[in-house]
Amino acid sequence: MKALVLSAGMGTRFKSEKPKVMHPILGKPMLWYVLRLLKELNIPDIALVVGYREEEIRSYFGEDYIYYRQSNPKGGTGDAVLSAMDFWKDYEGYLLVINGDAPLVKPQTVKNMQRYLHLVEEYEGKRLSALLLSAQLPDPTGYGRVVKNSEGNVVRVVEEKDASPEERMISEVNGGLYMFYCPHLFQTLKEVKPSSHTGELYLTEVFSLMHVSGYVVRSFMAEDPVEVLGVNTRWELAVSENVIRLRIVQSWAEKGNTIHQPESVWIEPEVVLEGDVEIYPHVMLRGNTKVGKGVVVGSGSIVENSTVEEGALIEPYSVVRNSRIGSSAVVGPFAHVREGSYIGPESHVGNFVEVKKSSLEKDVKAKHLSYIGDAVIEEGANVGAGVVFANFDGKRKHQSYVGKGAFIGSNSLIVAPVKLGSYSFVAGGSVITKDVPEGDLAITRPELKLYAGKGKKKLIGQEGNV
Amino acid sequence: MKALVLSAGMGTRFKSEKPKVMHPILGKPMLWYVLRLLKELNIPDIALVVGYREEEIRSYFGEDYIYYRQSNPKGGTGDAVLSAMDFWKDYEGYLLVINGDAPLVKPQTVKNMQRYLHLVEEYEGKRLSALLLSAQLPDPTGYGRVVKNSEGNVVRVVEEKDASPEERMISEVNGGLYMFYCPHLFQTLKEVKPSSHTGELYLTEVFSLMHVSGYVVRSFMAEDPVEVLGVNTRWELAVSENVIRLRIVQSWAEKGNTIHQPESVWIEPEVVLEGDVEIYPHVMLRGNTKVGKGVVVGSGSIVENSTVEEGALIEPYSVVRNSRIGSSAVVGPFAHVREGSYIGPESHVGNFVEVKKSSLEKDVKAKHLSYIGDAVIEEGANVGAGVVFANFDGKRKHQSYVGKGAFIGSNSLIVAPVKLGSYSFVAGGSVITKDVPEGDLAITRPELKLYAGKGKKKLIGQEGNV
Amino acid sequence: MKALVLSAGMGTRFKSEKPKVMHPILGKPMLWYVLRLLKELNIPDIALVVGYREEEIRSYFGEDYIYYRQSNPKGGTGDAVLSAMDFWKDYEGYLLVINGDAPLVKPQTVKNMQRYLHLVEEYEGKRLSALLLSAQLPDPTGYGRVVKNSEGNVVRVVEEKDASPEERMISEVNGGLYMFYCPHLFQTLKEVKPSSHTGELYLTEVFSLMHVSGYVVRSFMAEDPVEVLGVNTRWELAVSENVIRLRIVQSWAEKGNTIHQPESVWIEPEVVLEGDVEIYPHVMLRGNTKVGKGVVVGSGSIVENSTVEEGALIEPYSVVRNSRIGSSAVVGPFAHVREGSYIGPESHVGNFVEVKKSSLEKDVKAKHLSYIGDAVIEEGANVGAGVVFANFDGKRKHQSYVGKGAFIGSNSLIVAPVKLGSYSFVAGGSVITKDVPEGDLAITRPELKLYAGKGKKKLIGQEGNV
Repeated sequence: MKALVLSAGMGTRFKSEKPKVMHPILGKPMLWYVLRLLKELNIPDIALVVGYREEEIRSYFGEDYIYYRQSNPKGGTGDAVLSAMDFWKDYEGYLLVINGDAPLVKPQTVKNMQRYLHLVEEYEGKRLSALLLSAQLPDPTGYGRVVKNSEGNVVRVVEEKDASPEERMISEVNGGLYMFYCPHLFQTLKEVKPSSHTGELYLTEVFSLMHVSGYVVRSFMAEDPVEVLGVNTRWELAVSENVIRLRIVQSWAEKGNTIHQPESVWIEPEVVLEGDVEIYPHVMLRGNTKVGKGVVVGSGSIVENSTVEEGALIEPYSVVRNSRIGSSAVVGPFAHVREGSYIGPESHVGNFVEVKKSSLEKDVKAKHLSYIGDAVIEEGANVGAGVVFANFDGKRKHQSYVGKGAFIGSNSLIVAPVKLGSYSFVAGGSVITKDVPEGDLAITRPELKLYAGKGKKKLIGQEGNV
Repeated sequence: MKALVLSAGMGTRFKSEKPKVMHPILGKPMLWYVLRLLKELNIPDIALVVGYREEEIRSYFGEDYIYYRQSNPKGGTGDAVLSAMDFWKDYEGYLLVINGDAPLVKPQTVKNMQRYLHLVEEYEGKRLSALLLSAQLPDPTGYGRVVKNSEGNVVRVVEEKDASPEERMISEVNGGLYMFYCPHLFQTLKEVKPSSHTGELYLTEVFSLMHVSGYVVRSFMAEDPVEVLGVNTRWELAVSENVIRLRIVQSWAEKGNTIHQPESVWIEPEVVLEGDVEIYPHVMLRGNTKVGKGVVVGSGSIVENSTVEEGALIEPYSVVRNSRIGSSAVVGPFAHVREGSYIGPESHVGNFVEVKKSSLEKDVKAKHLSYIGDAVIEEGANVGAGVVFANFDGKRKHQSYVGKGAFIGSNSLIVAPVKLGSYSFVAGGSVITKDVPEGDLAITRPELKLYAGKGKKKLIGQEGNV
Repeated sequence: MKALVLSAGMGTRFKSEKPKVMHPILGKPMLWYVLRLLKELNIPDIALVVGYREEEIRSYFGEDYIYYRQSNPKGGTGDAVLSAMDFWKDYEGYLLVINGDAPLVKPQTVKNMQRYLHLVEEYEGKRLSALLLSAQLPDPTGYGRVVKNSEGNVVRVVEEKDASPEERMISEVNGGLYMFYCPHLFQTLKEVKPSSHTGELYLTEVFSLMHVSGYVVRSFMAEDPVEVLGVNTRWELAVSENVIRLRIVQSWAEKGNTIHQPESVWIEPEVVLEGDVEIYPHVMLRGNTKVGKGVVVGSGSIVENSTVEEGALIEPYSVVRNSRIGSSAVVGPFAHVREGSYIGPESHVGNFVEVKKSSLEKDVKAKHLSYIGDAVIEEGANVGAGVVFANFDGKRKHQSYVGKGAFIGSNSLIVAPVKLGSYSFVAGGSVITKDVPEGDLAITRPELKLYAGKGKKKLIGQEGNV
């Protein structure tokens, strides 16, 4: 079997410059899900028909695929398949044709269709010319209808706008996924005439031509009608995203992870949970994220392209991006770890702390209101509340280094580039502009002056600004 | 057509001092939605019957409406309509009567009812004395039932507590919205007797009187039964809010905005999205907010009474209130912009930064842990991490000014009122108490002293406090 | 009536070390809900059959219960009941047997079952040998089926894996809650044979033995089928948690609290709302939390084991744990109040402020970017932006005290232990290392130096680091 994905349309109802199939579902283009389906089916030859903004599609998906260009943007689906004729015209097998806006079809459904093709061949002695995925919808409005004869064979498939009132009453709708026997497709597709209404060549016209030619076409009904949902508006995009999201969330729960308020949790398709993970409501796990055994992710936290190792605790409302959190580390609440940072085992990055491009080794504490940028902090060091690593001098970024067991008192400023030796001690409120040797105490502190009675006077408005 | 809104009740089951119709749905009183419906229908004369805490209602909705007072709080709906008799008794048209606790009725439904009145007049040659909105409910418990005769005309409408067992089996319920032909209403309403159970005059009693007088009353069934949901408890309030919220969210998605987890997103009725906006889960857009083309609002952010201009990025968990965010600006994560602030184009207000009553012009950076209050900051200036604008001296608030391209080093304190000239440079950790001329460097920094070995001693507990 | 809870299983499909019944639902073990049910029914004698990791169960639930050990972990439910035989074998009444993984059964349902036992005795003159809770499920897959004869009596209950194809068509399923007449249970249970498939003794085998012995067994159908949901996977755990959560949320709404997006709100079972509370979306109220009249909890806030008094306002994204918030206090947005703190009436703890083990009396302001640890702050004091209470010297924690009406200027550092007298005034940017007497002004501030033109030079890269 070969597979052809129709993704040339612009998706007018999306009201967007971006091609419809490139709109994101859980951080991946809609089309990504269709291609993943085909890869999970181990279909070796996959081609895409592209047109509108094709370069955007090609540059995202790269050269694993064959691309055919549909030159007429209003040519219709029949014209799209014809545009890729070189891909399938000499192939004596089945061509799976799927719309790029059908991200919800499950691999098992397609496998069942493949099996059905075989069963019909084996038990009925027939080769189907086409098998199309369909679904029974309570409200079929907007979908093409599948018209069958008394033997259960498909006679024609008709778009809603071309359907007769009787045909509109049919509740079996076209699911936008077909398997065609290529020689028969070749024979019939070239005879399709443009629609008198729209001028488009409808691929679905081949079914009536096949039927008239004595070829057998069948439909295969999806168990779950949601699989055939086509995504034509951004509302349908949101609905599809929810369907895929809940499939992912449910599957991680069933693999032995506790997920609270699963309907509120966002897990992207490439995320991995290693088991016994506990996820609180409103969490987002994004991109290429890996969450180790026993990790707890507090409510509302966002982890993106990051690794969180065994037993770590992400407290509520933390944002972790492109970083690594070591085992049994504690992050948050309200922490922001970003851009290639590393929080070592048993370290604690607390509330209102930002860590950027920094490495905190084992058992480092930075629990309150700090900015740690471009720094390496060795094991056991303590960063007080309100400490800032001034890594930017108005022109350039600079690095800092904090040795083992060092202590940086609160509200101190570490002006990079600077090196604090092991077990050095920076007194609170100091501004450190040069290296502090190992074990030394560093301090910048003016004398404390007291002015008797002057405080109260200021407070009652008898004194000026200080 | 004239319209009369019944909003005199206190809503005992709400267990609240506030009148029931003033309880909020997406930031507006429930009653606001009923009045919006009537305005969308272009009904010129709208009156409200008020009673319980009428001043609260009148002061909110103002003098666009005519108010009538129901003096007997237990008079019932019939008494309520009688209280407003001056409004309609001489009117030879239809009076639309709606309960103030029916916020879910759609304009199209009322238009369809108006059209139905015309159609009956034109094709059946009848003038209906009343047309009432109804719905078919699987579980009608708690609602008044619509009793019809074999011709489909309404014979009576009966409250559940007064209904016979057979009447309770009826699943067509009274939707609380009526159109009365005023002369017939006048004739029948004055004959209504108080309920023997409650002593109230039920407006719905007129239907049986009309029927007995030979007048024709019909019911008009809502397509979607949710429209007739009356809001009698705070649970029903929550349900109604969800219905209205999802209508709003879906409509913005269909207009070409991407909304993730739409069921988690809160958009109030006066918010405007200009297209191609991307909204992440758990976002709240409140009040009079306008979001420009291509804006991305990260998850959990709250934007209230603010304008966000084209291409701006609101990172997760930011709170923006009564402010303006310029085009391509970046705000957050964890930023708080409030009280009449302006963040200029391409400016960046980062994590744990609060901006209050301040104006940041183009390309200003304040990326970490700062409080900027009562300041004007000119183009290209940089506010370091941990910088505080001390705008309060214990008695009064003062203003600060930061010129073009100025640089304020981290952990500095800007003691207002003060003026930093263009391209001035404040060294990190400084306290600025007087103006800094253009291009100057300002610094307050005590000498850095190092005490050899004393740091380690402190850390092992051999030295006192620093 | 006595009650026996079967909680010896490990719940293989949970893929967890922890016993299944100890997995949390809204912060309490699943088993807690079963025991709460039994306590609400006023059943005096409650026993638990434990086995897998019994010590974890016993230490959580303590000695209010009688525990019996099932020594064979694969003995099955029949063996479990036999393990507790001393509890019931001489009892001439009914034994309620419930699975520990059935947290959704409602007290009213069990009361109705008890009443049914009485009614059958009174009106039919029969003593039922067993009454089992059942439910009608559209898809009964996975559940044991209830097989009845034409008289409506239960003939047998069969596990799905042992069911015949006809039996699998039965949609009435076993709900895992039984009432047994003990003498009859004793007689039949000892005759149960191990399953030929699994070697387990199924408790449900007694029903066919009872039927054969001429005893009468009936089923009692739950009104809401969700009550019989057994929790066998973590997905079912999530579903059960949602069911219980929405019951709790709806009940607080109906008691007169406004809850926005109720499906997004998390309220644990021991939380109390005192009325007229307004809860915004995505809020979590946890543990032993009490929320006073008229309190508003902004979206995303988390309140755990805390008391929030009348009229307080919790702004969005605040985390309050083990603390008390006084009446009309304001907390947040983005505030973190923790570990035994007290925020007095009318006080205001604002954005990016952490309060730990501290007491803020009436009308204290700490509105921006502060860390207040181990401090007592008296009435009317003002803590400026960026102020840190340095409570840790690298070895020990120390206390601070701030007197009435004191003012701490921004970015100051209060180095504990230290005492600021009433109406004392700390100038911005100061480091306070010794006590400040009442009414005094304290300041540590180096001279401000200006270097003409040097700022601009630095900014264009002609000067080194500062």
